[in-house]
Amino acid sequence: MIEVIGFDADDTLWHNEVLYHQAKDELGVMLADYRHPREIIEQLDQTEVKNIAYYGYGIKSFTLSMIETAIRVSGGKVTAEEIDEIITIAKRMLSAPVELHSGVKATLESLSGNYALMLITKGDQFEQERKIRISGISHFFQYIEVVGEKSQSSYRKILGQYDIDPARFLMVGNSLRSDVLPVLKIGGQAVFIPNETTWFHENADQEEFSDFEFTEIENISQLPEFLTGKSL
Amino acid sequence: MIEVIGFDADDTLWHNEVLYHQAKDELGVMLADYRHPREIIEQLDQTEVKNIAYYGYGIKSFTLSMIETAIRVSGGKVTAEEIDEIITIAKRMLSAPVELHSGVKATLESLSGNYALMLITKGDQFEQERKIRISGISHFFQYIEVVGEKSQSSYRKILGQYDIDPARFLMVGNSLRSDVLPVLKIGGQAVFIPNETTWFHENADQEEFSDFEFTEIENISQLPEFLTGKSL
Repeated sequence: MIEVIGFDADDTLWHNEVLYHQAKDELGVMLADYRHPREIIEQLDQTEVKNIAYYGYGIKSFTLSMIETAIRVSGGKVTAEEIDEIITIAKRMLSAPVELHSGVKATLESLSGNYALMLITKGDQFEQERKIRISGISHFFQYIEVVGEKSQSSYRKILGQYDIDPARFLMVGNSLRSDVLPVLKIGGQAVFIPNETTWFHENADQEEFSDFEFTEIENISQLPEFLTGKSL
Repeated sequence: MIEVIGFDADDTLWHNEVLYHQAKDELGVMLADYRHPREIIEQLDQTEVKNIAYYGYGIKSFTLSMIETAIRVSGGKVTAEEIDEIITIAKRMLSAPVELHSGVKATLESLSGNYALMLITKGDQFEQERKIRISGISHFFQYIEVVGEKSQSSYRKILGQYDIDPARFLMVGNSLRSDVLPVLKIGGQAVFIPNETTWFHENADQEEFSDFEFTEIENISQLPEFLTGKSL
């Protein structure tokens, strides 16, 4: 019997990755004189992953990786004006409005009567707090947690802190790696809602799932029905 | 009677601002052909404060402000190589060892027998978590909190979360603005330990303190003695 439902935020409750995609496309076009846009984006992807150890996640980290990529792909020829454009892209991303996925508000409203809802998001705390503040849905959540990484130990810590039995916890999100797998591994349940644009870094190896079961739905609106089925 | 002692981390438990000072000096020297180093640092200070609304605190924010400053003070002439050097400075800062202030370990050890200790730090969560992890003192703290801003409401929220009466809470830190004033305002107590290099943004208007009392000590080692005096 589920008592607490955890929700990932970026690309589960609201659009996020699309901002990064737009920025990557802009960078490719901006630097097209130096290299083919596709190669620029590939180089950026590699730089981003390599820099996680230094920077962690979020737009500021992404921006520093965009600047580093611009220097590399241009062979040191990128101009101050172009770097300045990258900073302008960053500030636009950092002040972008939060656009909810379809069905989010009604679903949270309906579930909040019967379950304690928890928002669990990873990434830059400052950036996440701004989005939570302006999302218009923060009042549905009894718990709000911003973590550095979504690992088995971070889920265990959060649930322990509030004395929540993992067997009564269900996590909902678009990342197999961050939302589904670690929760299943600590004895919780998970619902996977794939998003058309999920960062490749968030995928997980299919083999890792051979011992686990989870449910996949297309839209968050199907969640109440799924939960009703469960409790029958 | 104090039951819980909160400690600021940056420049209270470990050296931090000195890394920023070194980086500013390096930037001034690096760009000295474009403008006088003193003016460059002034421009950087202004850019940093202006960018807090976009970026929040931390090394990544500081780095983006360094890059923006380099573009401005050079009149758009800064080279990709120079921007690359700024990124190198950032990565060095982000992987710098944590150097504890003198007396910290012994003081925490001595206090942890009689009080619940809490670490409350603001800034970039990813950067703070790294420092906490490698500090060698995290085991002394019963509670560890990384917040976006240290305001009256964020202190109230933290104390409320753990059911701590503000009257039994003492905060120790090097910032009048972040560690002392908001805690006094919610009915807690505070000990101020000035640091030789505190960011000007962390100062507070003297007038704001006219209605409040707090204690100033020179070194954290004096804290146990101060607390013994209080409880007599």
